[in-house]
Amino acid sequence: MTHPAGGEITSLRSPRVKAARQLAKRAFRQRARSFLAEGPQSVGAALESGAEITELFVTAPAASRHGGLVAAAARRGAPVHQVSGEVMAELAQTVTPQGLLAVCRFIDIPLNQLTSQLTSQLAAARPGLVVILANVRDPGNAGTVLRTADAAGADGVVFAGASVDPYNGKCVRAAAGSLFHLPVVAGAPLDAAVSALRGAGLAILAADGGGPARLDDPALAARLAGPAAWLFGNEAWGLPADLLALADEAVAVPIYGLAESLNLAAAAAVCLYASAREQRLAGVTGQRG
Amino acid sequence: MTHPAGGEITSLRSPRVKAARQLAKRAFRQRARSFLAEGPQSVGAALESGAEITELFVTAPAASRHGGLVAAAARRGAPVHQVSGEVMAELAQTVTPQGLLAVCRFIDIPLNQLTSQLTSQLAAARPGLVVILANVRDPGNAGTVLRTADAAGADGVVFAGASVDPYNGKCVRAAAGSLFHLPVVAGAPLDAAVSALRGAGLAILAADGGGPARLDDPALAARLAGPAAWLFGNEAWGLPADLLALADEAVAVPIYGLAESLNLAAAAAVCLYASAREQRLAGVTGQRG
Repeated sequence: MTHPAGGEITSLRSPRVKAARQLAKRAFRQRARSFLAEGPQSVGAALESGAEITELFVTAPAASRHGGLVAAAARRGAPVHQVSGEVMAELAQTVTPQGLLAVCRFIDIPLNQLTSQLTSQLAAARPGLVVILANVRDPGNAGTVLRTADAAGADGVVFAGASVDPYNGKCVRAAAGSLFHLPVVAGAPLDAAVSALRGAGLAILAADGGGPARLDDPALAARLAGPAAWLFGNEAWGLPADLLALADEAVAVPIYGLAESLNLAAAAAVCLYASAREQRLAGVTGQRG
Repeated sequence: MTHPAGGEITSLRSPRVKAARQLAKRAFRQRARSFLAEGPQSVGAALESGAEITELFVTAPAASRHGGLVAAAARRGAPVHQVSGEVMAELAQTVTPQGLLAVCRFIDIPLNQLTSQLTSQLAAARPGLVVILANVRDPGNAGTVLRTADAAGADGVVFAGASVDPYNGKCVRAAAGSLFHLPVVAGAPLDAAVSALRGAGLAILAADGGGPARLDDPALAARLAGPAAWLFGNEAWGLPADLLALADEAVAVPIYGLAESLNLAAAAAVCLYASAREQRLAGVTGQRG
């Protein structure tokens, strides 16, 4: 493990601590183009992804527990600051901080970079799978969908319209490292995201309880097997009508019981894994045929 | 709408208010065999299910907005108490109370009642689908899985081992009415739940990131088409090894990207909809054949 120079920071008034703590607020994140990644899972993912870590705060116990991560950050040139438990509690946004917190530079990419990646990918006959979060306000929901999109092998997630900031602390935590795993676009206007992704060759599938298409309809399988962007709306008020009208299909996850609906994260998991399944089945058939 | 007799309750010291408020705590719920269902969705589901509502608290604005629900509760003989906004804020466990709160009698059923329902159902050649929550501690997760199980058409949810109390306020809210939609078993020992459901003819499928079976393996389709109970473990520490050993299959949701895992609610959604899909496909084939 690495022993940080300069001794342990124990004062809450330390300028470094104050500057990092401000990154809990969106306005300060925007100004510094930096955000906080908390805990070994996020810090590990940041290191693996090559994200730029500008500072690492670590408590003495966490420095022993996660010596490999601390050393890796130091090798990359990130200043490592050992801090007291009290300072970590002030910096961290969790009730039981894990003792490790990185300041990272923003990692989102412009919408046109995502679409050109998709264009190349589609040209190589690999189907694309993208998520557009349309006015998803709850950071826990957004982070969970990001994690699920990563698990389902998606090629990108667009935080569009009035969606929460992907760098929100709760979102970063709910994403459990996935923020660093796949391309993320932040703050794109909804109509721009829809037209850019359609222009790249993706079908726009809107997840909407009203349908008319049903995810379990065999007639939808071909559509699911192709390149697609899934639109997920705000949990309380769903997708606005003008956005629904822009979609190639409005698809309902079928409700077999008495529930009125699924929550956003569950619906997204079912939709994304349905796409992943059909894309893979089609890939196997394609290779065989 | 119904005009409650006796005027509006405005005092936080009202014995009725105090008694209802205590039901936020598990020990008091156990003693009274009663719990709180908050908001029009839960109260509506309680009324539709025929659950016994022993008291209904409502603010004046909510009484106008949800006159139908209030009248229906009154017709069933539930005492309706109009309360001030301040009293509702004290009773409700949400930041923005919806003005309607019912005290309901416990609705869980014994494990053997669930298994005899399943035995009859299987005898009628309808496949069964059950969820066993194994030490799921987070009430939001448990309630979300209950809602998803309902949506997927499951026949019951067993809160087993050290799982959260299904009547926990956060769990009731996350379930969004589903607590009243399908049979729920509370507090069953894990091994008893597994052997009873296996005895009823269900395969035990353990959701476990380690597999060895994969949900997308075509060889698993026949298993998924049959009657099954899914075991979901604690999000942090998963399923204990002794429980995994009891399962007929340990099934991983495939991870196509870089995420380490899915969160519990997302994994449950993918697993339950995979079962629902295969059971329905098999049903259609069976009818045709």
